[in-house]
Amino acid sequence: MSERINLNADLGESFGAWSMGEDAAMLEVVKSANVACGFHAGDPLVMRQTVATAKRCGVSLGAHPGFPDLQGFGRRRMDVPAAELEAMLIYQIGALAGMARAEGMAVTHVKPHGALNNMACADAKLAATVARAVRAFDPNLILLAPALSQLVIAGREAGLRVVEEIFADRAYLDDGNLVPRSQPGAMVHGADACLRHVLAMLEAGALISINGKRLPVKAQSICVHGDDAEAVATARALRDGLQRAGYQLVSIPELA
Amino acid sequence: MSERINLNADLGESFGAWSMGEDAAMLEVVKSANVACGFHAGDPLVMRQTVATAKRCGVSLGAHPGFPDLQGFGRRRMDVPAAELEAMLIYQIGALAGMARAEGMAVTHVKPHGALNNMACADAKLAATVARAVRAFDPNLILLAPALSQLVIAGREAGLRVVEEIFADRAYLDDGNLVPRSQPGAMVHGADACLRHVLAMLEAGALISINGKRLPVKAQSICVHGDDAEAVATARALRDGLQRAGYQLVSIPELA
Amino acid sequence: MSERINLNADLGESFGAWSMGEDAAMLEVVKSANVACGFHAGDPLVMRQTVATAKRCGVSLGAHPGFPDLQGFGRRRMDVPAAELEAMLIYQIGALAGMARAEGMAVTHVKPHGALNNMACADAKLAATVARAVRAFDPNLILLAPALSQLVIAGREAGLRVVEEIFADRAYLDDGNLVPRSQPGAMVHGADACLRHVLAMLEAGALISINGKRLPVKAQSICVHGDDAEAVATARALRDGLQRAGYQLVSIPELA
Amino acid sequence: MSERINLNADLGESFGAWSMGEDAAMLEVVKSANVACGFHAGDPLVMRQTVATAKRCGVSLGAHPGFPDLQGFGRRRMDVPAAELEAMLIYQIGALAGMARAEGMAVTHVKPHGALNNMACADAKLAATVARAVRAFDPNLILLAPALSQLVIAGREAGLRVVEEIFADRAYLDDGNLVPRSQPGAMVHGADACLRHVLAMLEAGALISINGKRLPVKAQSICVHGDDAEAVATARALRDGLQRAGYQLVSIPELA
Repeated sequence: MSERINLNADLGESFGAWSMGEDAAMLEVVKSANVACGFHAGDPLVMRQTVATAKRCGVSLGAHPGFPDLQGFGRRRMDVPAAELEAMLIYQIGALAGMARAEGMAVTHVKPHGALNNMACADAKLAATVARAVRAFDPNLILLAPALSQLVIAGREAGLRVVEEIFADRAYLDDGNLVPRSQPGAMVHGADACLRHVLAMLEAGALISINGKRLPVKAQSICVHGDDAEAVATARALRDGLQRAGYQLVSIPELA
Repeated sequence: MSERINLNADLGESFGAWSMGEDAAMLEVVKSANVACGFHAGDPLVMRQTVATAKRCGVSLGAHPGFPDLQGFGRRRMDVPAAELEAMLIYQIGALAGMARAEGMAVTHVKPHGALNNMACADAKLAATVARAVRAFDPNLILLAPALSQLVIAGREAGLRVVEEIFADRAYLDDGNLVPRSQPGAMVHGADACLRHVLAMLEAGALISINGKRLPVKAQSICVHGDDAEAVATARALRDGLQRAGYQLVSIPELA
Repeated sequence: MSERINLNADLGESFGAWSMGEDAAMLEVVKSANVACGFHAGDPLVMRQTVATAKRCGVSLGAHPGFPDLQGFGRRRMDVPAAELEAMLIYQIGALAGMARAEGMAVTHVKPHGALNNMACADAKLAATVARAVRAFDPNLILLAPALSQLVIAGREAGLRVVEEIFADRAYLDDGNLVPRSQPGAMVHGADACLRHVLAMLEAGALISINGKRLPVKAQSICVHGDDAEAVATARALRDGLQRAGYQLVSIPELA
Repeated sequence: MSERINLNADLGESFGAWSMGEDAAMLEVVKSANVACGFHAGDPLVMRQTVATAKRCGVSLGAHPGFPDLQGFGRRRMDVPAAELEAMLIYQIGALAGMARAEGMAVTHVKPHGALNNMACADAKLAATVARAVRAFDPNLILLAPALSQLVIAGREAGLRVVEEIFADRAYLDDGNLVPRSQPGAMVHGADACLRHVLAMLEAGALISINGKRLPVKAQSICVHGDDAEAVATARALRDGLQRAGYQLVSIPELA
């Protein structure tokens, strides 16, 4: 039987009069969408439309909560006390779950956004707060987290099902962290290179660092970006390449 | 058997560092709370704390969604297109429902706030949008609406259970609308006068206008205000007076 | 001597990670920019960059204040009490004036945005509030207002210098209002038609309605839109056509 | 001739329907007000009213800009890129300067708020960004900064006039930082103890740490807090005690 793999993308990032991303096109490629919940991007109408389109495309829904920072798109680090952060996360997951319910859908996973995600990947305490919030809302929710991060550990310790993701277009350091964008080699350019990068890691059952070091991990999801037309082409190439290589593309709740 | 009646109050209206209302005291008096959902007042942490206190006090939870206008406390009229308003309402109800779920509670009713409520009471189309949003989220939710308003009609037409509320401290015009605050006689002052006002209307099965005109209505809930210490005393006097008069105070879902 | 005329556009409408408009291209065409001030669009960094580019291009600066409604882009009507609205306007003008000062520029005119502008054009009381705010900040500021609107009257009554603008791409009703976008014929399509529309009105010294009715007005500024590449082409065609017709394009403070 | 000293307080921290502080009472005691500018607290109407009251009381105006974080009251640390932070500061100073201008007043100093202030006191780069923003708006503005902080150094390096402030109700560590609120002895309790604390430091020409260590500094301003009725009483006692000790209380621009 073919191995199952998931493609996910951050979507629903338009806001009011401002449009962002090629959501309609991406929702025909990916199997799971991480939907912005209004704190760093998205608004109620954008959320509802994204949910409705995801339903039509058979794409599973994840909440993509972030810091309350529209102007900074949730990319600015903030020190939010744990009790407040936990409440903010439940609020955002609940808001998207309400929208999903209104459209006959359900939220099945959660993936933190931007600076919150970056901070929680490195900070065990923050990761535990994220996991606690997810569990408080619904212990059956799946946590989608970068492979080998503190979020993975915290999610499992909280008793959540965790799916580990890798990035198609980013290189890794020897310690499993992403090569910072400010450094040379941070990005993997072109659909072919992205596909080779991903296939190599899936076949190795490991992150493969920029220096060739292997860090064993069972990654089940691949994050693609949906910002522009080229991103959509890359996502399509990844999907097609994975299928040719024998993988079965499924939504996050359909992963084994 | 004694007749059932409900006392409700708008609560959870603090925001960040700013405190408002005597929530802890009011939650020991009323049977149902309309909880602000973060658009005109309230924030995730305030919402969670309000839900937790309501649970301890055996108070039922209602979402109290408003216009996205913190600075104006949701009291400024806004023209929001129907699709956007519907999404905003689902978002807010969902956010509070998420918080309730995290605390082992459930949202059982919805009552619009401020300018949105005032507008929807008079505008059948807006009232229909509100009812549609409530129904989209959950057709079992109860709509709490001012007696004889367009919201009552729209809620019933949408197939929702509607509970009609009257105000203890406000006088009514002959057409069933509230006497505007700018006019003399708008407010009923003092706990005794409020109790007499309420009992007269409950016994008559009618709104009684400032001119003595009777407009038949089966009001099942009484709205009290929680802004200051005197308001709490008035609420207590109402509760005690209603019980002495033989009424049984229950939460909104416990109404017949 | 050739007659002076101004071309203005609403600019600086990006927000955080969201881009809007072709500002750099438009600032090479128009002579005056109405810069969003952060309430309905724009953010401090976008404002500063817009001011800096305007300076390089020799474009005069106007504040373009709106309702506090980012999600609605200031296009939703709001009922804001006069004292609050006046303070909101002063706040926004002051913020842009600060940015101008930091770049060695000055704000020389004010033009309200969106729903606020529409409402103030029709409502004498609201128009007076706008004029009062502008005057309170600086009585030497010029009010840029749609031709024949209540804003023109209120500005003059407040002792402000008023410049009346016409729209290149919009048809007028017999009463001088714009044909609503929902009606046929509302828009003037194509650069040539826009130029003919504008030249006809300038030569007639009158608004010319969709039915051919003439409403005398001394319009000194033409508003063009900067939303897309076609808009820039239209603006360029207008500029070139006006120059060929003998008009001298100047900034708002350079108008007679 | 008697030595001049200033009393300052953070004011204008109400927001919309939410009230905070005893501004009217404090404005009769202090000589300079640091007015919130709408990002962490305050709104345009509150700002205007605060400016008008300050004018009546002969109190000088300072801008008190903070992070864009109403819910966190500007107390949550945020990582804001320097160019954005600089623009945010100019925006807020400009907005208050506009309000001052509308009331016939002027902003004469700037004091950052909350987490921004704390961070800039310790981080030379951030302090330089603050100083650069102040200078860009107006090189004649005075920077009001905690004694011995990086802000003092950065302000002077930028060519700004700097006034160093000490806190009446906070104890100092041996390195000149405040004793964290989480540690015993952080607060100086009671008007008498505050006055003795302040007089000892003024007479010594030094911060005096909780261990008695002296760090020479020429503090010219004393920060008092205005949150509650007791704070007002403490501020009055400080003012009266300083006058009895021979100090002349003046506004910040009146300091030597």
